[in-house]
Amino acid sequence: MEVINKYVTIKCHINGAPNESDFEIKTETFSLSVESGSNNVVVKSLYLSIDPYQINRMKSYSSSQNTISQAVGIVPGEAIDASGVGRVVASGHPDFERGDLVSGKISWGEYTIVKGANIDKLDLMGFPPSYHVGILALSGLTAYAGFFEVCKPKKGEKVFVSAASGSVGNLVGQYAKLFGCSVVCCAGSKQKVELLKEKLGFDDAFNYKEETDLESALKRYFPDGIDIYFDNVGAEMLEAAVANMNAFGRVAVCGVISEYTDTAKHAAPNMLDVVYKRITVRGFLCIDHMNLFADFISTTANHLRNGKIHVIEDISQGLESIPAAFTGLFRGDNVGKKIVQIIDE
Amino acid sequence: MEVINKYVTIKCHINGAPNESDFEIKTETFSLSVESGSNNVVVKSLYLSIDPYQINRMKSYSSSQNTISQAVGIVPGEAIDASGVGRVVASGHPDFERGDLVSGKISWGEYTIVKGANIDKLDLMGFPPSYHVGILALSGLTAYAGFFEVCKPKKGEKVFVSAASGSVGNLVGQYAKLFGCSVVCCAGSKQKVELLKEKLGFDDAFNYKEETDLESALKRYFPDGIDIYFDNVGAEMLEAAVANMNAFGRVAVCGVISEYTDTAKHAAPNMLDVVYKRITVRGFLCIDHMNLFADFISTTANHLRNGKIHVIEDISQGLESIPAAFTGLFRGDNVGKKIVQIIDE
Repeated sequence: MEVINKYVTIKCHINGAPNESDFEIKTETFSLSVESGSNNVVVKSLYLSIDPYQINRMKSYSSSQNTISQAVGIVPGEAIDASGVGRVVASGHPDFERGDLVSGKISWGEYTIVKGANIDKLDLMGFPPSYHVGILALSGLTAYAGFFEVCKPKKGEKVFVSAASGSVGNLVGQYAKLFGCSVVCCAGSKQKVELLKEKLGFDDAFNYKEETDLESALKRYFPDGIDIYFDNVGAEMLEAAVANMNAFGRVAVCGVISEYTDTAKHAAPNMLDVVYKRITVRGFLCIDHMNLFADFISTTANHLRNGKIHVIEDISQGLESIPAAFTGLFRGDNVGKKIVQIIDE
Repeated sequence: MEVINKYVTIKCHINGAPNESDFEIKTETFSLSVESGSNNVVVKSLYLSIDPYQINRMKSYSSSQNTISQAVGIVPGEAIDASGVGRVVASGHPDFERGDLVSGKISWGEYTIVKGANIDKLDLMGFPPSYHVGILALSGLTAYAGFFEVCKPKKGEKVFVSAASGSVGNLVGQYAKLFGCSVVCCAGSKQKVELLKEKLGFDDAFNYKEETDLESALKRYFPDGIDIYFDNVGAEMLEAAVANMNAFGRVAVCGVISEYTDTAKHAAPNMLDVVYKRITVRGFLCIDHMNLFADFISTTANHLRNGKIHVIEDISQGLESIPAAFTGLFRGDNVGKKIVQIIDE
């Protein structure tokens, strides 16, 4: 059986802030059956993950594209692979059958042909499928591994999280509170700041757009200094955090969204602070911490069942909403994990 | 008995590159006896350590001055404490007697009154006293701890060292070679580069002043990338090293001499590289690694006895030479550990 498959692609490489007009919805004739002898699996998309890092794959060149297979450049006109949850509609692989719920790399499209070994059967564990694109998937693991493994927190330490209403930041703050740290966060709107303080119970939060001097702002919010900075933004915020860091402070660099769309923008922290305060700045990717996945899932699922973690999701409807959903990440439109639901089963 | 004690001081705070005219030799009447009931020790200086970090103490303000007691600001007109080796000329402390050789914090002067517990008796172990100001003292420990503890090297890794003819850099390179790493270094003159290649046997070395594009230079010298960068200079060199770093690369930030005399100058490494290549940038100070001192001394003394480590010292004569010796550090005048010999016993 054949259908028309719609998928999102870029018209050309994107080297600055992305616009919706940089994207195109393409269509193709798509077979819903698997050739005999192939172990392919045909997956119908249900929920797709919308992540800022994809912008680095859309550039004509970024050094990041040479690092790992997940960061390889996206070719204009071709389908864009992304994490998602879907339903098997045809399978040539013995481990999968029609109707199975799966998670893994599919595409920003309605249907994807996946090599059987490159997808996982999904156990919902009683949670909505969208959780398995965000909080119980790589966003969650990034927060968990980044906080516990990279930041190596001690109870009572003072934690600063930027972009704290984003997919990873809100969870880092929640893990840090549950662990016994004090947490002050920043975000880019009054509404987000209220959410962080009132719903998530962080010790404090501020709107960085209302601050003219980030270094002074952090001095106000951290009169006793910062022990851990979980960096999602880079640039001036990283500089201000380093200036306010305590001795033996740790910076986990998860992402630097403010530098993604402006290649001339780089954090220039005071290196005398780095030396004299013996600060460690460490970049990390969740893919290096898959050994923690089982721990992460059981811990997080328990917290969810006990109501100790709040899930902040921002779900748009339909494949056509992907360009707006993605470009909105760079305008700070999303509150929580950005997800697009492709079909309502 | 009283003598005239000469000592070096700064006339006023120094906020840029230091000039000899910023310094002054002062004299004072100085008693060579100890008051009864005091546990003070009067030490006559023999060899004094001349270190770039002192410039950060000479500034009217540097955040570094708030970090550790060793980095506290220097008051114009007052004596400047520094590491050195000296001879006890009078003692009120039961552990010390006239004639003892001691090492520790004395001052850039001919004589110092030291509280007895704040100095150590020195066992020369068959080495010249100057070694106990450099290679067998904090410069050596900095290289040893920085390389083995902070860089966590593996055999065969590719190591880059900047300011490699300096007190710490030359030793890092030598430890790295002995450990089984390949080592490429840079320095600021043809003569230094020859020394690094020919006498110290590094795999390669280059004069950074002859390179117009440091990133390209490092690409030439490290076609397979850098695993470890031991940073003594900061700024553009740190940026170029990060750009050439391999996945899981480590940067040990020992010092950033190019940033010391220009507060507007900061390294602005590409943070996308830091994230995607999972680079760790870690500042450190040797004082946090005193637990390694015994290991460091026994390992280094063995290498010295077996002729496996070369000692590169640059010794000036006389207290009056201190201002030139110190300011020369920032012009790259020194080749190896800069020491001033105060008296020839």
